[in-house]
Amino acid sequence: MSDLTSSVGRSAMDIAAAVKAGEMTAERVVTDHLEAIAAREPDLRAWVHLDARAAMAAARAVDADPAAAGPLAGVPFGVKDIVEVAGMPTRNGSTIPVDGPADADAIAVARLRAAGAIPLGKTVTTEFALFQPGPTRHPFDADRTPGGSSSGSAAAVAAGTVPLAVGTQTAGSIVRPASYCGIVGAKPTFGRIPRDGVTLCSSTLDTIGMLGASVADVALALGVMADDREAFRPSDLGHRPRIGFCRTFEWDDIDPEVRNTLEAGVQRLAADVEVVEVAMPEPMRGLVAAQLAVMLVECADELDGVRTRHGEHLSAALRRVLRSGDGHRWAYDAARAHAAAAASHLDELFADCEVLLAPSVLGEAPPRATTGDPLLCRQWTLLATPTVSVPGLTGPGGLPLGMQVVAPVGRDDLALGGAARIAELLAE
Amino acid sequence: MSDLTSSVGRSAMDIAAAVKAGEMTAERVVTDHLEAIAAREPDLRAWVHLDARAAMAAARAVDADPAAAGPLAGVPFGVKDIVEVAGMPTRNGSTIPVDGPADADAIAVARLRAAGAIPLGKTVTTEFALFQPGPTRHPFDADRTPGGSSSGSAAAVAAGTVPLAVGTQTAGSIVRPASYCGIVGAKPTFGRIPRDGVTLCSSTLDTIGMLGASVADVALALGVMADDREAFRPSDLGHRPRIGFCRTFEWDDIDPEVRNTLEAGVQRLAADVEVVEVAMPEPMRGLVAAQLAVMLVECADELDGVRTRHGEHLSAALRRVLRSGDGHRWAYDAARAHAAAAASHLDELFADCEVLLAPSVLGEAPPRATTGDPLLCRQWTLLATPTVSVPGLTGPGGLPLGMQVVAPVGRDDLALGGAARIAELLAE
Repeated sequence: MSDLTSSVGRSAMDIAAAVKAGEMTAERVVTDHLEAIAAREPDLRAWVHLDARAAMAAARAVDADPAAAGPLAGVPFGVKDIVEVAGMPTRNGSTIPVDGPADADAIAVARLRAAGAIPLGKTVTTEFALFQPGPTRHPFDADRTPGGSSSGSAAAVAAGTVPLAVGTQTAGSIVRPASYCGIVGAKPTFGRIPRDGVTLCSSTLDTIGMLGASVADVALALGVMADDREAFRPSDLGHRPRIGFCRTFEWDDIDPEVRNTLEAGVQRLAADVEVVEVAMPEPMRGLVAAQLAVMLVECADELDGVRTRHGEHLSAALRRVLRSGDGHRWAYDAARAHAAAAASHLDELFADCEVLLAPSVLGEAPPRATTGDPLLCRQWTLLATPTVSVPGLTGPGGLPLGMQVVAPVGRDDLALGGAARIAELLAE
Repeated sequence: MSDLTSSVGRSAMDIAAAVKAGEMTAERVVTDHLEAIAAREPDLRAWVHLDARAAMAAARAVDADPAAAGPLAGVPFGVKDIVEVAGMPTRNGSTIPVDGPADADAIAVARLRAAGAIPLGKTVTTEFALFQPGPTRHPFDADRTPGGSSSGSAAAVAAGTVPLAVGTQTAGSIVRPASYCGIVGAKPTFGRIPRDGVTLCSSTLDTIGMLGASVADVALALGVMADDREAFRPSDLGHRPRIGFCRTFEWDDIDPEVRNTLEAGVQRLAADVEVVEVAMPEPMRGLVAAQLAVMLVECADELDGVRTRHGEHLSAALRRVLRSGDGHRWAYDAARAHAAAAASHLDELFADCEVLLAPSVLGEAPPRATTGDPLLCRQWTLLATPTVSVPGLTGPGGLPLGMQVVAPVGRDDLALGGAARIAELLAE
């Protein structure tokens, strides 16, 4: 491949292979992507901090011995601005003054860097990864949200300006923006990727994940962040695998036209996979409300110090969320108990299928007044299951519409394998 | 008083006195009020059913021996259309076909009728007294809601077309519309008025109450409905009573300009009463969310048969509310336990004052897309306390803004006495 072709728009694996083979320098890759970002940024507003100098230095270090670099050699990526990157400030989507840059990388970022990847900067998050929107626009419609809270990561990937970006999910903050933006977004099994260096919001729910253009790229990056490549290698589901179509208890909350689009999408899979209808067992009902109660209470706890010290810098919406958390303490134990009881029925969901396919968003990206509703993601986050948003469908308004692939706890390989298979079929 | 003066706009007590004294016929009173209703109804849309013939027959029965008639002799009133009136259909704000008229009055209506009052018809309610708005307009701004769920009762009273109208409250369905419309609305202590003949929505919360132009009228009507005049006779609070101003945990949810209006209103009381600041004890936090959980679950139970038999006639919004109830069952016991624990701290609220004065609405009546937010009423309904909305303040936009007077459980006399005193002071 000629070095005259821009590296922008190529997959992470492709870039890494080219860099390692000496066909392309990491410096060139970084330069290309910084240029692409500069071209889109005035409209997209996906980044809160870019560090070209540090990125170029990291690129030159890779270029010094490209063959020795790791599996993500020279791959540029973005980092949601609640995750620390050495030398860059962590603003958490907040106006609270920041003392200075972070001293060290979050563990997940350090592992990506050690694998040869190059952080270009910090992407826009909603305020403390909750509901107050940041400035980022949907890449295909400036009046709409890219989703949140990993808003900038999703928009930057969907606009083709980076192949990968780190995100986090507490309710639906990876899967929702990925679904709105038509990219791949994976929330791994809870607890698989260390959260050191991440601003926590809800300690039993917060999960680091990855947004990218392809399942293969995302799987590779997750494996690096988890320091367990094997666990995140997409399984081959084999001949005519059984995919469970699970409408979930929230199906009727989805607009009828969108439901039709989703069902038509599932129909398109039937030539290659066996689609089985899977109903959620009745004891699993109520997880949406339980997730909300757990999240609200834990947020009020995690952010209590921030509220005390910097209350005047918090948005009215965030203060309301924290007050709502104070007002849900009576529900916390019951919500956790309900989640545990529901989780004991997870096996039943997978009794007849390898993975589930479920709706992930109520419709296409809404206007920018909000970042959309995480309703359909809440229960899977509470259940700790790996979920991957797959692109390929188009909503009634012409914007992307994702669906999520869900696998049993610990079977990220299945979630990613199922997502790869389904994404391929939907792209045909 | 001359019979040539219209009876419209006069108080219920005034009308009853005139009728009993033979100064005015009940027939004339009913005719006057039906004319007033006819004049306003095209714009107001407060009524779903009017029965002039039955009202005139009832009036003639009163006129046959007016001196023998009860304390509400000849007083016309409206009845929220979830409460049965003999000979009139009960539609519950729903499009479900109705078999025919009710055979008998609800007990509360029968007692009003026995006291000489005359039901003119049924007033608009939201669908099953929940959140889907009916057609009723705010009497002073057609683009705004009169509040709900007792929408028609509040609008009819505020427009001056009836002196009294029966309402019910599960969250804030009496106090909220009364506050928006600038009238008196009283939710008595839970359980004081029998609910036979009322369509239930939430069995531990639903409370029959009354909307009217004055505290004295409302107190009289409540005493009649409870068959206990003494318990609802407004107490005289005496010289410089202590009124507790309780901002509640939800104060910061109120718009700052509205908070200023409320505080200025409280200041105006200080010449006549001693205002003491009362903070809610910390164990009482969280009652808003607990009330919502209890209400949602009980609604899903109460309306389960309706959903099964008539699902296609229910609005999407109502079906969503019922599904949300299904999804909150895990929270029910915890919410009830929290309410009971909080109720054990009620005494502390009244340790230093006779009654509390608390905010009742987040602001002036909002646009008609909703019937407004019952947020500030929820906890008092859950606690079963008597609460009375008092008019007298005007919001930043020029529309009425009520506040609520709260008294200990069973002390409706105090709530009404406090409301009378405060209403008088605010009217000066």
